[in-house]
Amino acid sequence: MQGTVLYGPGDVRFEECPAPKIIKPTDAIIRIVAACVCGSDLWPYRGLQPVAEPTPMGHEYCGIVEEVGSAVRSIGPGQFVIGSFFASDNTCSVCRHGYQSSCRQAEFVGGAQAPLLRVPLADGTLVATPDLPPDDLIPSLLTTSDVLGTGWFAADAANVRPGSTVVVVGDGAVGLLGVLSAKQMGAERIIAMSRHEARQKLARAFGATDIVTERGTEGVARIMDLTDGLGADSVLECVGTQESMMQAIHAARPGGYVGYVGVPHGVTLDGQELFFEHVHLHGGPAPVRRYLPELIGLVWERKIDPGKVFDLTLPLDRVAEGYRAMNERRAIKALLRP
Amino acid sequence: MQGTVLYGPGDVRFEECPAPKIIKPTDAIIRIVAACVCGSDLWPYRGLQPVAEPTPMGHEYCGIVEEVGSAVRSIGPGQFVIGSFFASDNTCSVCRHGYQSSCRQAEFVGGAQAPLLRVPLADGTLVATPDLPPDDLIPSLLTTSDVLGTGWFAADAANVRPGSTVVVVGDGAVGLLGVLSAKQMGAERIIAMSRHEARQKLARAFGATDIVTERGTEGVARIMDLTDGLGADSVLECVGTQESMMQAIHAARPGGYVGYVGVPHGVTLDGQELFFEHVHLHGGPAPVRRYLPELIGLVWERKIDPGKVFDLTLPLDRVAEGYRAMNERRAIKALLRP
Repeated sequence: MQGTVLYGPGDVRFEECPAPKIIKPTDAIIRIVAACVCGSDLWPYRGLQPVAEPTPMGHEYCGIVEEVGSAVRSIGPGQFVIGSFFASDNTCSVCRHGYQSSCRQAEFVGGAQAPLLRVPLADGTLVATPDLPPDDLIPSLLTTSDVLGTGWFAADAANVRPGSTVVVVGDGAVGLLGVLSAKQMGAERIIAMSRHEARQKLARAFGATDIVTERGTEGVARIMDLTDGLGADSVLECVGTQESMMQAIHAARPGGYVGYVGVPHGVTLDGQELFFEHVHLHGGPAPVRRYLPELIGLVWERKIDPGKVFDLTLPLDRVAEGYRAMNERRAIKALLRP
Repeated sequence: MQGTVLYGPGDVRFEECPAPKIIKPTDAIIRIVAACVCGSDLWPYRGLQPVAEPTPMGHEYCGIVEEVGSAVRSIGPGQFVIGSFFASDNTCSVCRHGYQSSCRQAEFVGGAQAPLLRVPLADGTLVATPDLPPDDLIPSLLTTSDVLGTGWFAADAANVRPGSTVVVVGDGAVGLLGVLSAKQMGAERIIAMSRHEARQKLARAFGATDIVTERGTEGVARIMDLTDGLGADSVLECVGTQESMMQAIHAARPGGYVGYVGVPHGVTLDGQELFFEHVHLHGGPAPVRRYLPELIGLVWERKIDPGKVFDLTLPLDRVAEGYRAMNERRAIKALLRP
């Protein structure tokens, strides 16, 4: 088969790869129906994260089960399934606490930008839809695999509650779906920090009530203006840079919550500064598996339409164009169909 | 009057000072019944925090109201009162969220190691006891002013719940009262990290079920042994060094909570490490005022006996010996009686 491999900065290739096979009895092979390019794929693509060796890319996926290992019990061939980017057994003590992305057997799922994918720990990892989905639901279902689950975790980690005032730092697909998540959780006011018109528009469609275009110290000053000098109850940090992290921390009120899901790159926090900011801080790789049943349900019942973040759809063999478009911020998120 | 003044590292003097006066109509003057030396007083005493000018010391206090300003409504002369080290109006938006130590009008209360003390924002800051207390309750009531309130906040910030497994890093008075707090909140297992026999004994008296004497990486390994490799639900960080902070973070399970109340000195956190640790982090100067009514109530009804942390009682004029004894760890905490 042909799949996507990253060789180095800016060098992503769609090329002949060995088809995945069942390795362990707990594996499944799924035929990808849709995959996509993640904001986190851009870190190595931009050279901000080393690429030690040619790496099969893609960790957001949905598809039809093709084959399962002999120990797999809960899913079977022909089912439409979605999984997270971390395979998890969903039974260990860490999973039982809802942190499946830190599962004791956690294994990163890579190589989803391809026609076939091996998913380890299939019983714990994959969730089947009630039926084969209609085609127009595919984009929204795909988002539950990572980008929606991650935005949702950001909002959950930031303790969004009915009536909350929420700030979202980052207008990538995760930030935008953080807006949608905060709206679903009942936030009264949602301030999206964005300077891109198309993204502002989508943020508003997802529930943002205010847009702040300033960044850094000026951005924080704007948030203070908008919240009577108090700061926000909840701040979702969806970027991962030093500036965005400090912006998030300073935008929260004393006792407020910062949920951070942007993988930190070169971020250091000063203990004393954090202490006197008085904020709650929680984040990490989103335990998407925890939320999958609920999020699939919301999409299935058409209560949310997170698939709107895909503003570019490409056949899988044009994956390199998806990376380019996202890197140049011409596209918010690229959907890939084999 | 004579009061306590810190001139520089190791140089604390009990000397003639001007008696405090009502400056603002919201002030009160209280006659100190008991004060004490705080672990945080030791940072400048040890030269780990600069002393810019001779500084009146002491911020933990209880006493009898001597005089109130013209705007004070809720307390009056003759009442026995307790306040926090941060004066707060208890009405602003920050206070209403329970973060009185970040009150918009917050003012540090200093100079309590003296016979008389000026307390700003008296209506918001001071809480009166139901009646004049019997003398044997004075030590426990005094702890509610800071050290118990701080240990309590550490446990609250660390989300201690009935059944929780809790680790307490730091065997100073705050850590020991963190143990007591966790016990009160229903923790099932409380692991105190301490290598001092007298403190271990007190920790057990307050509810610790296990003692770990190792520190740093070895201490974390011991916690992992004791928790089946998972880590603790809640960790109370009651020291404030880089080592203790990392020990706390690594001792928590994925999704666990670290409540930190040791004022960080030279602590930096790596964003990516924190991200993958998956912990909740919350701390800061304890909003003691939030807890004062509840804690005073528990002491008044003799449900808790936090005054046990005082293992040295001195007349106020021997305050310098209190600093020395705590600095040399000969005493856990020194009570001062004018």
